[in-house]
Amino acid sequence: MVAINKEIVTLDPHLIGVDWGSTCLRVFLIGSYGEVLATRTSAQGSSSMNGSAWAYEQSLEQLAGDWLQEYPDIKVLACGMVGSKHGWLEVPYVACPSDVNAIAARVMSVKGVDQRRFDIVPGMAYRPANGVPDVMRGEETQIAGVLSLRPEASQRSCIILPGTHSKWVQIEQGKVTAFATHMTGELFAILRQHSVLGRLMPSQQNELDPIAFLRGVEDARQGMYLGFAHQLFAVRTLGLMEMMPPSSLADYLSGLLIGHEIQAGLGWRLAAGLEQAPLILVGDPSLCAHYAQALSHCGVLNASILSNTAPVGLWAIERATAGVHATKLAHKVNV
Amino acid sequence: MVAINKEIVTLDPHLIGVDWGSTCLRVFLIGSYGEVLATRTSAQGSSSMNGSAWAYEQSLEQLAGDWLQEYPDIKVLACGMVGSKHGWLEVPYVACPSDVNAIAARVMSVKGVDQRRFDIVPGMAYRPANGVPDVMRGEETQIAGVLSLRPEASQRSCIILPGTHSKWVQIEQGKVTAFATHMTGELFAILRQHSVLGRLMPSQQNELDPIAFLRGVEDARQGMYLGFAHQLFAVRTLGLMEMMPPSSLADYLSGLLIGHEIQAGLGWRLAAGLEQAPLILVGDPSLCAHYAQALSHCGVLNASILSNTAPVGLWAIERATAGVHATKLAHKVNV
Repeated sequence: MVAINKEIVTLDPHLIGVDWGSTCLRVFLIGSYGEVLATRTSAQGSSSMNGSAWAYEQSLEQLAGDWLQEYPDIKVLACGMVGSKHGWLEVPYVACPSDVNAIAARVMSVKGVDQRRFDIVPGMAYRPANGVPDVMRGEETQIAGVLSLRPEASQRSCIILPGTHSKWVQIEQGKVTAFATHMTGELFAILRQHSVLGRLMPSQQNELDPIAFLRGVEDARQGMYLGFAHQLFAVRTLGLMEMMPPSSLADYLSGLLIGHEIQAGLGWRLAAGLEQAPLILVGDPSLCAHYAQALSHCGVLNASILSNTAPVGLWAIERATAGVHATKLAHKVNV
Repeated sequence: MVAINKEIVTLDPHLIGVDWGSTCLRVFLIGSYGEVLATRTSAQGSSSMNGSAWAYEQSLEQLAGDWLQEYPDIKVLACGMVGSKHGWLEVPYVACPSDVNAIAARVMSVKGVDQRRFDIVPGMAYRPANGVPDVMRGEETQIAGVLSLRPEASQRSCIILPGTHSKWVQIEQGKVTAFATHMTGELFAILRQHSVLGRLMPSQQNELDPIAFLRGVEDARQGMYLGFAHQLFAVRTLGLMEMMPPSSLADYLSGLLIGHEIQAGLGWRLAAGLEQAPLILVGDPSLCAHYAQALSHCGVLNASILSNTAPVGLWAIERATAGVHATKLAHKVNV
């Protein structure tokens, strides 16, 4: 994606893409070939809207009002928590297995005060035959973006979207066939902020300690049978016994948590017969680099990294909605 | 223990026992045979003392000043976080394997303003040859109490002390040979209060739903390979999909967490060759009953339950300190 921060928009914009998560709102002015012409971000996440349609429209107006005015006929397509039960409009989950067309077919619209139409992407649900269901909102769009950018991954691949609620996703024949959420990022945040484990850590985050991080990955891997709630306590005892400096404890905790996720996820990938298929990490580049490092420590060396693919995904869903199936991106896309 | 709440003290008190945890202070007036003559509790936990000796003495004075005055020569023995780095006096950990005599030999004293002596029990540390150390403060005293009350468990047994930081303890020949902490109770509290999982739960805790609890235990057991951070997310999806009522989600979470601990703990017990040895749960009777139920669900039917054994433990350590080894309790002790 070409992020033109200076907003010198020379091409005709084709779509306003909106990635509206719980804590963050991002808008993208997107060209006909999926290229990002401009990006803006605000902290007006979905969770601060209190489910008020008025608040949603106002926040979007604040961030992209000039675009909406300048291009009165441009489509607006939003993904993420904006489509949840407490969102702007609840858009029911599309069921696994689903491809980009199935997602596009379930896009729903809400009308704004001046009758302007805002389209909202559905989330996706996975209901395994024996087991507990799983859900995503926003990641289905990022996945659509990955499959647009990397058509070779459409046949068979495993996509990992690390984050607050990391997703491990199985792709077969262009469809999401299964996925699993890991609350790794949220666990890190609450353990650091609210548990006894945070007490020995300095309040300021310092330089990354890659050795402590990899020790956490290794300890998670070696000791999974000892129990997660036991292994966590090592963060405290290593600090108490002065076997690890306080400044390294957060990285060790991060390694433990990511190591657990990767250990479980690799088993899940193996069970799905996807260990030879491409493995793609998608999201914040620095977090993805941590995952790649941990994966490599566990012997998985072929993971590639894509940064945020939500805008390309929104563009791909919009194209599918319009019945125009994009076959390729005409522009070279940098990610 | 005979808890005489009306405090009609007819026997000569022998010891003031103090169980001083992070969030709670408990004092016991204890007779020569380990019987509890009176108990008092306050919320003046160790973590609210800010490491001030003056605050410790004042809080004890407030709760048990009349006892201290009435029995000027009585011994005072305290266990728990009062002996930690930020406690009244840091009493170094005694190393595993240790028995009650080893604990007693490492008791340290602090002098109060009027030269009164307060004795403090050391915590215990376990440093496995390959692995991360573990620590306890307070539980070593409860364990001493268990072995006083149940001499038959001294030879070989497994003791579980459920709580904020549950401990699984191996006993051989009267000694604690190994132990493992599981942060189960703390995880439950912070996940409920601070994570997305608490959002669908009603703020008031309602009647226990034993079916949801056992489903959590079973899901933990069946799906451990899927990863802890993944399984937790089921609390959210079962609520979102209306597959479980909001009022049952906390019990399901509790079952998941306790199920994970038990699954890991039973593997640990098996590896130690203790699966035929007595299994004793110690602590809050209602929490212990939950653990017993979960254990029974996992095929372990022989767990017995003891309520708080800290006062008997303090008495046993005091006797060992005094070089007088109690052989038995003369009174029938109800626990």
